[in-house]
Amino acid sequence: MAAGYFGAGKQNDTGTFEFSIRRLPRGRDFVVAAGLHRAVEYLLNLSFDADEIGYLRGLPNFRAVPEEFWDYLANFRFTGDVFAVPEGTLVYEGQPVMNIRAPLIEGQIPETYLLSAITFETLIATKAARIVHASEGRDVIEFGTRRAHTPEAGVLGARAAYIGGCAGTSNVLAGYQYGIPVMGTAAHSWVMSFGSETEAFSTLQRLLGENTIQLIDTYDAVEGARIAAGLGKPLWGVRLDSGDLPALSREIRGILDAAGLQSTRILASGDLDESKIAAIVATGAPIDAFGVGTELATSGDAPSMGAIYKLVEIKHDGQVRYTSKRSPDKHTIPGTKQLFRYPDFDLLGLHNECAGGAEAMLKPVIIGGDLVGSLPSAGQIRKRARCALAPWPPGIRRTEYSASLQRLLSA
Amino acid sequence: MAAGYFGAGKQNDTGTFEFSIRRLPRGRDFVVAAGLHRAVEYLLNLSFDADEIGYLRGLPNFRAVPEEFWDYLANFRFTGDVFAVPEGTLVYEGQPVMNIRAPLIEGQIPETYLLSAITFETLIATKAARIVHASEGRDVIEFGTRRAHTPEAGVLGARAAYIGGCAGTSNVLAGYQYGIPVMGTAAHSWVMSFGSETEAFSTLQRLLGENTIQLIDTYDAVEGARIAAGLGKPLWGVRLDSGDLPALSREIRGILDAAGLQSTRILASGDLDESKIAAIVATGAPIDAFGVGTELATSGDAPSMGAIYKLVEIKHDGQVRYTSKRSPDKHTIPGTKQLFRYPDFDLLGLHNECAGGAEAMLKPVIIGGDLVGSLPSAGQIRKRARCALAPWPPGIRRTEYSASLQRLLSA
Repeated sequence: MAAGYFGAGKQNDTGTFEFSIRRLPRGRDFVVAAGLHRAVEYLLNLSFDADEIGYLRGLPNFRAVPEEFWDYLANFRFTGDVFAVPEGTLVYEGQPVMNIRAPLIEGQIPETYLLSAITFETLIATKAARIVHASEGRDVIEFGTRRAHTPEAGVLGARAAYIGGCAGTSNVLAGYQYGIPVMGTAAHSWVMSFGSETEAFSTLQRLLGENTIQLIDTYDAVEGARIAAGLGKPLWGVRLDSGDLPALSREIRGILDAAGLQSTRILASGDLDESKIAAIVATGAPIDAFGVGTELATSGDAPSMGAIYKLVEIKHDGQVRYTSKRSPDKHTIPGTKQLFRYPDFDLLGLHNECAGGAEAMLKPVIIGGDLVGSLPSAGQIRKRARCALAPWPPGIRRTEYSASLQRLLSA
Repeated sequence: MAAGYFGAGKQNDTGTFEFSIRRLPRGRDFVVAAGLHRAVEYLLNLSFDADEIGYLRGLPNFRAVPEEFWDYLANFRFTGDVFAVPEGTLVYEGQPVMNIRAPLIEGQIPETYLLSAITFETLIATKAARIVHASEGRDVIEFGTRRAHTPEAGVLGARAAYIGGCAGTSNVLAGYQYGIPVMGTAAHSWVMSFGSETEAFSTLQRLLGENTIQLIDTYDAVEGARIAAGLGKPLWGVRLDSGDLPALSREIRGILDAAGLQSTRILASGDLDESKIAAIVATGAPIDAFGVGTELATSGDAPSMGAIYKLVEIKHDGQVRYTSKRSPDKHTIPGTKQLFRYPDFDLLGLHNECAGGAEAMLKPVIIGGDLVGSLPSAGQIRKRARCALAPWPPGIRRTEYSASLQRLLSA
């Protein structure tokens, strides 16, 4: 398409591409926006090296491409403007997440990358918010890298889960890269590598001291709890990873309390999600924290959502034309928009409208190819999301269209 | 755990870690193994730089770690052996995919990375095989990067989809990195950037010639088909991305044929998966190829599976001990194993058994930290998978245990 725009003499046309949530993920009333940091990193560094250009030149699809296109590509960099909702913002169905205003080619090339990067972290941050809510104040720790769709998705999913409210992650690389608290326990392999649980537990305790969490269910959870309790303090907690969690946690709480370990926590894990956690919490089980893996790292019940990236406006020779798609069930709304958030409802208007008393949610991120200010840390974004998510549930928010947008729609 | 093994004086103990499929993904009778290439790349390059070690030293969990551990980590490299089933091999429930025999720490550190890398590509290659089968000989093109869980997952998913039988991908980076055929169409933005479909289509045709595929449903698919047909040859195909695909394809086939475009193909896409494709194929709709995105790129109906990485054997001071986990529903089988494949069934035995007439499926990949031979290309792996998948369905394969393994299990 880039070569086609170039060949058609459209390299000086500018367009606005809108990234929006056409359909929310299954079973969701809102999403927690995340992933913008990677979009920014990508756009600021987007370029094509000689090997890549050589590969493209060899493809049959590029046979009729004018020679000047390859020079254009060799000098390519993103020079446009990006407006986006900050990470940690709640977004509702039909709302825009980002606008890219740029020469047509510069706005077109990033489409696929941006859809994947932003959609994925948004799915995971949203799933995390649901799980954290179900946990009713207990810490939730992200344990899902091994089930993430590639190791990179594990790192970025850990970041998104933290934004969504998790207390930390077992992904140490995510901790290193994004300043997220890292926490976890030794695995079953640790226990199995010793001749006995007593030896495995006491060795870990010597190493970790106050941070010790014993994984007690390699052989038999109750017996494991007795052994851990027998070793006494220091013992931050014990982890249960299988079996009937409410029943076992009660029995184990009794064992710990009887050994004077009232402050030792019980951490539960094992194929948990928001509904299983809600059911466990409802039993009053003495579980202090949850480790959540597979379902969180893959957004298991809703692993995709209908995010779209569409051309909404184009400027050719100084003339603006509003564009939209009219396929059945897949229509789009023309025009460069702004999302105005009022206390009680949202207003979708044109980007140059003024809506007094509302917050304009699409904020400048990149202008003329340069970053505006600096991006917030994962911790700052997490705080923003926490404010937006209280009180729960954020519910369904009405989105109205401004009079100008309505005129454009009926034009 | 690495620091703990070191602190406990276990750095000279060696272990075998087994990567196996404890539970197949939902609704699957087998998986197509994929992802080994990344495991190899990771293991051959695994090391820790000064910044990373500095970060780890600052974590509270590492306070009691002996100083020598940091020197150990600075000099760390993987020196063990890896045996694995080749990519493109069919694997059944309960079967091993990989053994890692190495000093305990070297085998432990890679656990999470390997689980994520291999599980993900295996899920996608398996999903692709199902979709390709449902398409009954029609080409399936992987269109899913925008829905993949990060852009990297898009590239690796495209590779896995190709291994599973797809004809190509719209992910150009995957084409560049793995030699996969790249194919696709212009997007709706292309059509919308022109004042009319006639202009958009004729411009694309000039650029792409025989490779032209027109996306005809931006406004109205039948009208789009008439415009594309009116422009005549060259026209490889038209793409339908919405609406009632069987009915529309019939109408559009008529329009193309009436214009003398009998050799122009119809490519259909739009939230497809294996069951929707099977239903479309059953109607006899004149669709020549399918583009599949979301469901393929996320393995939508089964976005995770129960792959595990467990210590099965440990050697300390020359003494071998077999290890297993006995948690409820999560027990593991001790001992370093080999998977022997006979024509009619599989035999799981110990790694040093001899099973005449069977193929030993776990083959040496890395020995003493060095790669054995070179890895096959994505195209070679795809051929292997294609042979393994014919005739369809590969069905449920019986896995027997050898007498030696049974003795170990009951010991």
